[in-house]
Amino acid sequence: MSLDIKKIGLLANLGKPGVHTVLHQAVEAIISRGLEVYVDEQTVRSTGLEVTADPGFSLEKPDCDMWLVFGGDGTMLNAARHLLHSPHPVLGINLGRLGFLTSVNPDGLCEAMDMLLRGEFRIENRSMIRASGPVISDHHPEGMIALNDLVLSRVDATRMIEIRVRVNGQLLTDYRCDGLIVSSPTGSTAYSLAAGGPIVHPGAEVFTVTPICPHTLSNRSVILGLDSRIEVTSLSSTPPAMLTSDGQESCEMEPNRTIVITRAENPLRLIQLKGHQYFNTLRQKLQWSGLHNDPGGAGECQ
Amino acid sequence: MSLDIKKIGLLANLGKPGVHTVLHQAVEAIISRGLEVYVDEQTVRSTGLEVTADPGFSLEKPDCDMWLVFGGDGTMLNAARHLLHSPHPVLGINLGRLGFLTSVNPDGLCEAMDMLLRGEFRIENRSMIRASGPVISDHHPEGMIALNDLVLSRVDATRMIEIRVRVNGQLLTDYRCDGLIVSSPTGSTAYSLAAGGPIVHPGAEVFTVTPICPHTLSNRSVILGLDSRIEVTSLSSTPPAMLTSDGQESCEMEPNRTIVITRAENPLRLIQLKGHQYFNTLRQKLQWSGLHNDPGGAGECQ
Amino acid sequence: MSLDIKKIGLLANLGKPGVHTVLHQAVEAIISRGLEVYVDEQTVRSTGLEVTADPGFSLEKPDCDMWLVFGGDGTMLNAARHLLHSPHPVLGINLGRLGFLTSVNPDGLCEAMDMLLRGEFRIENRSMIRASGPVISDHHPEGMIALNDLVLSRVDATRMIEIRVRVNGQLLTDYRCDGLIVSSPTGSTAYSLAAGGPIVHPGAEVFTVTPICPHTLSNRSVILGLDSRIEVTSLSSTPPAMLTSDGQESCEMEPNRTIVITRAENPLRLIQLKGHQYFNTLRQKLQWSGLHNDPGGAGECQ
Amino acid sequence: MSLDIKKIGLLANLGKPGVHTVLHQAVEAIISRGLEVYVDEQTVRSTGLEVTADPGFSLEKPDCDMWLVFGGDGTMLNAARHLLHSPHPVLGINLGRLGFLTSVNPDGLCEAMDMLLRGEFRIENRSMIRASGPVISDHHPEGMIALNDLVLSRVDATRMIEIRVRVNGQLLTDYRCDGLIVSSPTGSTAYSLAAGGPIVHPGAEVFTVTPICPHTLSNRSVILGLDSRIEVTSLSSTPPAMLTSDGQESCEMEPNRTIVITRAENPLRLIQLKGHQYFNTLRQKLQWSGLHNDPGGAGECQ
Repeated sequence: MSLDIKKIGLLANLGKPGVHTVLHQAVEAIISRGLEVYVDEQTVRSTGLEVTADPGFSLEKPDCDMWLVFGGDGTMLNAARHLLHSPHPVLGINLGRLGFLTSVNPDGLCEAMDMLLRGEFRIENRSMIRASGPVISDHHPEGMIALNDLVLSRVDATRMIEIRVRVNGQLLTDYRCDGLIVSSPTGSTAYSLAAGGPIVHPGAEVFTVTPICPHTLSNRSVILGLDSRIEVTSLSSTPPAMLTSDGQESCEMEPNRTIVITRAENPLRLIQLKGHQYFNTLRQKLQWSGLHNDPGGAGECQ
Repeated sequence: MSLDIKKIGLLANLGKPGVHTVLHQAVEAIISRGLEVYVDEQTVRSTGLEVTADPGFSLEKPDCDMWLVFGGDGTMLNAARHLLHSPHPVLGINLGRLGFLTSVNPDGLCEAMDMLLRGEFRIENRSMIRASGPVISDHHPEGMIALNDLVLSRVDATRMIEIRVRVNGQLLTDYRCDGLIVSSPTGSTAYSLAAGGPIVHPGAEVFTVTPICPHTLSNRSVILGLDSRIEVTSLSSTPPAMLTSDGQESCEMEPNRTIVITRAENPLRLIQLKGHQYFNTLRQKLQWSGLHNDPGGAGECQ
Repeated sequence: MSLDIKKIGLLANLGKPGVHTVLHQAVEAIISRGLEVYVDEQTVRSTGLEVTADPGFSLEKPDCDMWLVFGGDGTMLNAARHLLHSPHPVLGINLGRLGFLTSVNPDGLCEAMDMLLRGEFRIENRSMIRASGPVISDHHPEGMIALNDLVLSRVDATRMIEIRVRVNGQLLTDYRCDGLIVSSPTGSTAYSLAAGGPIVHPGAEVFTVTPICPHTLSNRSVILGLDSRIEVTSLSSTPPAMLTSDGQESCEMEPNRTIVITRAENPLRLIQLKGHQYFNTLRQKLQWSGLHNDPGGAGECQ
Repeated sequence: MSLDIKKIGLLANLGKPGVHTVLHQAVEAIISRGLEVYVDEQTVRSTGLEVTADPGFSLEKPDCDMWLVFGGDGTMLNAARHLLHSPHPVLGINLGRLGFLTSVNPDGLCEAMDMLLRGEFRIENRSMIRASGPVISDHHPEGMIALNDLVLSRVDATRMIEIRVRVNGQLLTDYRCDGLIVSSPTGSTAYSLAAGGPIVHPGAEVFTVTPICPHTLSNRSVILGLDSRIEVTSLSSTPPAMLTSDGQESCEMEPNRTIVITRAENPLRLIQLKGHQYFNTLRQKLQWSGLHNDPGGAGECQ
C-alpha cells in the first residue's frame, strides 16, 4: 500500500495511564523521521508535548494525512464517529490490553512508523452504521453513528421493551426483550457477542441483529446484508427505551417511534500493518480455541 | 390428597380485567358448597362482593384452610412472598392466558372446587429462595424472598457490572456482565429462560445461576443443589447494581457488598388438580416442540 | 421482471404422494397457455403424462426457458446441483409442507403461471458453494456442489474428529467436534440452524461456519464473506470423517487431507412470485415470534 | 473422614504412556506405609510389578478397602461401571492432563497416600445412571450403566432420528435430532457441554437431557430430578439409532423400541483429598472465566 504521509494527526485518550510517555515517544518518532505532527491544544497542554498545537485543529476537516489514535478500543470508537467525514486512515496504538481496533503496542511504535513509511500495511474499510429518525434528529442532526453497534435497551430494569423490526419494508418479527443490538461486522466481538451473537469477520458485509434476553425459546441472531434498511419501532405498549451508539452516546425513545438503521456513507479506514491477522487477535482476546479446551469424558476412552 | 377445607381465602389482582365477575362466581361457588370465604376489606369494597370481610384478615397468620389466588403468574409471585409463613396451600386461577402458576381457567372454577372437595389434587412444594446481607436488611429485615428468581442487574445501561460468585465458600468465577440471575426451579421458565438458561422441572432441587450477557465466549448456566450457599459480591470496580426479587421488589447494591442466597425455609405449597401435567403447560406456553418445527433441508432429501 | 417463456422444463420427485395429479394439472396449465413442456421420458412414463418426452432431454444443456421443480426442499437441493451450469431460472412447487425453496402450493399453480407470464416475479440469485480437493476429485471431478451446506461429520459415533480451519491462508482455529457445517446463506435455516447457527437472509453474501458439538465452552458460528477461501484440514490424529453435500452426496475424508470451500461460479436462479416475503416463510416454518411466546413471570407483575 | 485402609486395589489403563513408572511408584508408596496391594495378574505381568497378583482378583467382589485408578477420565468411567456393586471408594491418579475424575497428579502420589491415612479426604457419592429395556437386556442383562452419560445417536450421518421422551409417564416432547444426551451430574462437563448443556455441580441431584442438533429454533436442556423415570422411544418413522454408555459401550436401537433411564442403585464413591475444589478444576480445564475474556468495545469507553 502506498500513502503519502507528511503530517500525522494525534488523538489520545488523555485519561489512560501512561498516555503522556507514549505521546512523547510518538512525537519523537514522528519528528525524527522528518514528519510533522498535527495535534490540538488540549493534548499539548495536558501532556507537555514540545510541539505546537495547530490553531485550526479540526476533526471534520483535518489538515493531516493519517491519524494515530492512542487508547483502548473505546477510544477508537469515539474517534471513528468524529472522523466520519475525514478520508484519512487511522492506526490504533493500545494503551492497555491488545485491542481489536488498537493493534499496535506502544513498544512497537517506532517499527510501526517505519512500516508505514515503507508502505508495509493495508487499509481495511470498516463499515459504520447510522440510525436516523425524528427521535434522534433533535440532538444528532446527522443521526447517530456507530462503528460497533446501535443498541436499543430498556430503561426500567424490571420491565421488558416491545419492539417491531422491519427489513426493507417487510416484517421481520416482534420482540419482547431487554433490548436489541444492531451490530456492524466490527461490532460482532463487542456487545453482540455477549448477547450470544456469532463472530463476524470484518470483511463480511452484514448487519447482525441480536435480541437481548428475548422472552421466547428462540434467541438466534439474524444476519442481513449491509445494504438493508432496518426499521425498529417501539410498540405502543412498551415502556421507554434508550438508543445507544457504541456504548457512548444515548437518546431516549418513547413508545410509537421508529428509527431507521442503514450503513453509514463512509467507512472507518483502519490501517493494518503487514503481518496483522484478525483471527490471531480473536483467539488471543477471547482465549478461543476449539481444540485445547478439553471437557473430558466421551471420546478419550481407555 | 386429603385436606380439610372449611374456609377459603381469596387473593386477587384487582387491576386485572374481569376480576370482579370471576370473584363473584368464586364466592357463589364456595358458599353454595357450604364453605366460608376469608377475604380482606379492600377486595370486598372494590368488587361489591356480598360477603363480610374478616376484620382480622392477615396474610402472615391467616384464618383459612387454603387460598385461591386470582390473576396472572405475577399475582402468584407476589402472593407467594407474602404467604411465606403461611402453611396453607394455594390454587391459582388465571385471569388471562394460561400461567405456569395459575393453571385453572375461570370457567373451570366450579369443577376445580368439586375436585378440591373430592381430594382430586396433590400439593407441590415449590422451593422459594432468599437473599440476605447487610445491603438488604435495612429495608427487608427478613431478606428478599423470591419464588422465581433473584436478579442482580446493572443500573447504568452503558456500563457492565463486575461480580464474584462463591458457592459454599469456594470461588465459582467472576463475571463481567449485564447481570446475574439466580433462579429457583419454578423460575427456570421466567427470566432465566430469556437469558439462555435450561428448563428445570419444578421437582428438581436446584438453583440455576445464569449470567446476563457475560463478556466472554462462554455463557453457560451453572446448576447447583438447593442446599448450596451462594455468595454474590459486587467487586470494587463495579458501577452500582440493583437486586430484584421476582421482578417486583428491588434494592440497590453498591460496590464491595455481598449478599448470600439460600433456599428459603418454607416452600410455596401449590395445589395441582388431578390431570395437570407440567410439561403440557410448558409446551403450550412456549410453543415448544422438537418435532413439528421443521427447518427443512437436510434430512428430507428426495 | 421480464422473461421470454416459451418452453417450461419439468423436474419432479416422483416418489412424493400426489405428484402425478399435480404434474397433470401443470401440463394442462402450461399447454392451455400456449406454452410447451420440456420433460424426460421417465417422468412421462411413470406418470402417464400426455406429452412427448424430449429425446435429447438434458439438465446440463436444457432446451427450455425455465424450470418447474415439484417436491420438497430436498428435491430443489438435488435439482440445484444438477442445474449448476444451466442459466435458466427455477420455480418450486411444494408437494407437502411449505418449503423455503418450494414456495408455491399446487392449488396456486394456475395463478403462478399467469403471474409468470405477466412478469410479476423477480429472480433471486442464491449463491451455491463448492468443495474441491484431491479427496473429492476422484468421484466428483468438478468438486462437490451445495445449495445449503457442506458438512464434515464423524463416521464413528463415539469418536470426535479433529480439524483445522484456515481462511484466506490464515488460521481460524482448530476444532475437536462431532462435525463442521459450512453453510451458504440459503442453508442457514437447515442443518446450521439445528447446530445453533444464526438466521442468515438469503441476500447476505456470507458463509456461516458452525461447529457441531465442539468440545469447548465456546460454540459460536463464524460469519465470513462469500469471497473467502475456506480450507478445512483433517488433522493427523483424527478418525475418518465424511463430507456431505446438502445431506445428499457424500465422500470419505481420511486424516491429513485438505478440502477448499469457495463460492460456486454460478448461483441458483430462484423465481419468487410477487408478494413472496422471505421472513413470512421463516416465521411460519419455524413458528418463530419474539412476542407471542411468553415465558411468564418477570415483567408481567401485578 | 475415617476409613480403615489396609489393602489398596490398583486399576490402570495399561496403554497410557508412563503408566509403568507410576505403578511402580504407587506400589512402593503403598508397601512402605505397611499397606497391601490388590492387583490382577495382567497388570503385574505387563508392568513387572514386584508384587503377587491376587489369584481371586475380582472387580465385583474385591478383597480391598479402596481403589487407586490410574489413567484419564475415560479410565475412571470404565472402572466405575465395573465397580458398580463394589462399595469401596476410588481415588483417581491422572496419567496425562488434569481430569475431572482423576484429580491427583503422579508426583503428588506420596502426599495423597499420607492424606488418605490421616483421614484428610471426603467421599463424594457420584450418582450413576442406568438404561434398561428389551433392546438392551440381550447383551447387558443388568442394563447399560453410565457415570457420565447415556447417548442415543443416529447411525446414518445424513438422516435424523425421531424420538419421544416421557418423564414419569408424561410426555415431555418429541425430538427430531441427531441424538439425545441423558447426563448424570458428573457428565455435565462431558458430551452434554459440547451439545450446549449447562454446567451441573456434581452434588446437584439431577439428570440433564440435551438434544443434539434438534431441528427447531429451541434447543434448551431439560433438568429433571434424579428420581425421575425417563422413557425414550424411537418413533416408527426413525432410522436406526445407537445407544452408547460413557462413549464406551454401545447397542443398536431399532424403531418402536423404548428404553427406560433411571438412577443406578449405587453411586461411585469418589475420594476427594482435602483442599480439592470442583470449581478450580472446572475453571482450569475449561479455561473458563467470566471476567478475563474481554471482548472489548462497549463499556470500556474513553
